Amino acid sequence: MHKNLNLVPFVSVDHMMKLVHAIGVENFLVELAQVIEEDFRRWPYFDKTPRVASHSAEGVIELMPTNDGVLYGFKYVNGHPKNTRDGRQTVTAFGVLCDVATGYPLLLTEMTLLTALRTAATSAMAARVLAPEGARRMALIGNGAQAEFQALAFRAMLGIDQLSLYDIDPAASRKVARNLAGLGLEITICETAQEAVLGAQIITTATADKQNATILTDNMIGGGVHINGVGGDCPGKTELHADILRRSSIFVEYAPQTRIEGEIQQLPPDYPATELWQVLDGKMPGRASLSEITLFDSVGFAIEDFSALRYVRARLAEFPMFEELDLLADPDEPRDLFGMLLRAAPVREGVLA
Amino acid sequence: MHKNLNLVPFVSVDHMMKLVHAIGVENFLVELAQVIEEDFRRWPYFDKTPRVASHSAEGVIELMPTNDGVLYGFKYVNGHPKNTRDGRQTVTAFGVLCDVATGYPLLLTEMTLLTALRTAATSAMAARVLAPEGARRMALIGNGAQAEFQALAFRAMLGIDQLSLYDIDPAASRKVARNLAGLGLEITICETAQEAVLGAQIITTATADKQNATILTDNMIGGGVHINGVGGDCPGKTELHADILRRSSIFVEYAPQTRIEGEIQQLPPDYPATELWQVLDGKMPGRASLSEITLFDSVGFAIEDFSALRYVRARLAEFPMFEELDLLADPDEPRDLFGMLLRAAPVREGVLA
Repeated sequence: MHKNLNLVPFVSVDHMMKLVHAIGVENFLVELAQVIEEDFRRWPYFDKTPRVASHSAEGVIELMPTNDGVLYGFKYVNGHPKNTRDGRQTVTAFGVLCDVATGYPLLLTEMTLLTALRTAATSAMAARVLAPEGARRMALIGNGAQAEFQALAFRAMLGIDQLSLYDIDPAASRKVARNLAGLGLEITICETAQEAVLGAQIITTATADKQNATILTDNMIGGGVHINGVGGDCPGKTELHADILRRSSIFVEYAPQTRIEGEIQQLPPDYPATELWQVLDGKMPGRASLSEITLFDSVGFAIEDFSALRYVRARLAEFPMFEELDLLADPDEPRDLFGMLLRAAPVREGVLA
Repeated sequence: MHKNLNLVPFVSVDHMMKLVHAIGVENFLVELAQVIEEDFRRWPYFDKTPRVASHSAEGVIELMPTNDGVLYGFKYVNGHPKNTRDGRQTVTAFGVLCDVATGYPLLLTEMTLLTALRTAATSAMAARVLAPEGARRMALIGNGAQAEFQALAFRAMLGIDQLSLYDIDPAASRKVARNLAGLGLEITICETAQEAVLGAQIITTATADKQNATILTDNMIGGGVHINGVGGDCPGKTELHADILRRSSIFVEYAPQTRIEGEIQQLPPDYPATELWQVLDGKMPGRASLSEITLFDSVGFAIEDFSALRYVRARLAEFPMFEELDLLADPDEPRDLFGMLLRAAPVREGVLA
């Protein structure tokens, strides 16, 4: 991508938006899901280091690294629920992709938008093997930053064309309806979660409360649905009543992480949960019957970010939406780092003044 | 530093060189050492997460995070000895400083140069409490990328004005002599390490061999010297014969890490070693007698990088050697990430094409 070893491609937020538009939002989601599925199918090749979390009273800062022996990626991501009080985001993220053979960074990119995209792509990828065939209506409970991405991923990948929206704040539902207007989706804003799930074959929960909440109760869930649980993603933060979990076939990204962070933190540590990569790879069945309730208990895993970094880097070849950062010292002679500094002095005599 | 929440200050390699020259190399080292010492004195306040290492056949990629409850910093650093074959650096690094209260990044910077500077500043800071008083001659064994920074830090902070250089490659010694010419240092290039240590009160070893080497043997080391061991910094990589260690009072950054990575990996796990912060904070003695051999078994610790990030950020106020990166998504309404994307569409109708 570049001849100068000191330069690293950087995708800003503005460039990411341009890249998404150049590719098309739904096409981006479909292509990204393909790359995530490729990486899930070669799951055993990945280093699955646990995320490195630093907790404070206000929130958490995490580093999520992984590598497949050829490429290394990590994401920096924070979670600070009180941030919205002064106009900041609850979650922001950026990431880096590197060459394992040299340790040199290959890409630095914003990942706030990219994480929203990869989360939705992963949800739809899971639903493709778990949701009932012919599903057309999705209930979307929690209409925050993730909602529209979920709607478009499910439209593009599963043919969902009817949306039932519910949020405790009706303004959030109106925002989603407004943003998705004119796309041919049939959108209904509901006054209760119960109303939203009626007639839906897929139920996506993506709420933001950092506490054990019960967005769905057992009596709301009939047989044959697929639940895409996105919002329960850290210790103490769940969305579903445990009784629903006990009636469901549970699918997860990476069981050791989900047992700590996901809905199944409510269940005994040996409760059965199938890792999604095994379904994608044909090792385990997905949906087994029409009446089965399937649950994708999604918490977000480093491999999805890795896939997203890999996908963006690949697409930059066709759509060069990046600038180059002078990030790496590159002296003419590797041992002569000081000489490089010396030769950059504005006035040679003044260098050590 | 900026009003726009999406922007993060970025210090490129070029800007870092300009910053160092604007402040002056030696002044930079002195000021940086002060900040590192401040942070070492409040050692118990820091989160001392172990570095997260990813090893491959070719090298290692590490993330080194720490935080003091107010600021969070991490460094990405690689170590790939074969990189020099195709003109790349063995070690490159970059780092990020963040606000713990919001999780927002405050600074992204190159850290290849900055790491060289912080390593030298830390060495001189340690020597100030460990080296014999009135030391004027330093032997510098290993004349690679770190050598000149060590020389200047020891000149600025301890008054070293005589250097004895030795490297297995005489061209490396000549490079150091050339780079430091005209600064009033009396420089001797030696043909053996033994010759270099003669008459030196301080012996700095900074070689790059990734194996157990014996740069110094016991019979070369007389009483009363201070050894600044910089090159032994990972498992299997040491520079000093174990007999020297047994005659020395040993000082380390963080004992749990140094016992794995430092010279003392050669000693039993309970062998006495004093953490430097305790000396700086007055809890433990430094050099106790004229005849004592002191050893600073330096491996590099995340707090030094944290201090370096903190120092650079503070100095940017006076010397604005940075650009601003559009790194963080900043929608007008935090929940409306998709709306931000939508409004960035080149042609509104074409957004979902």
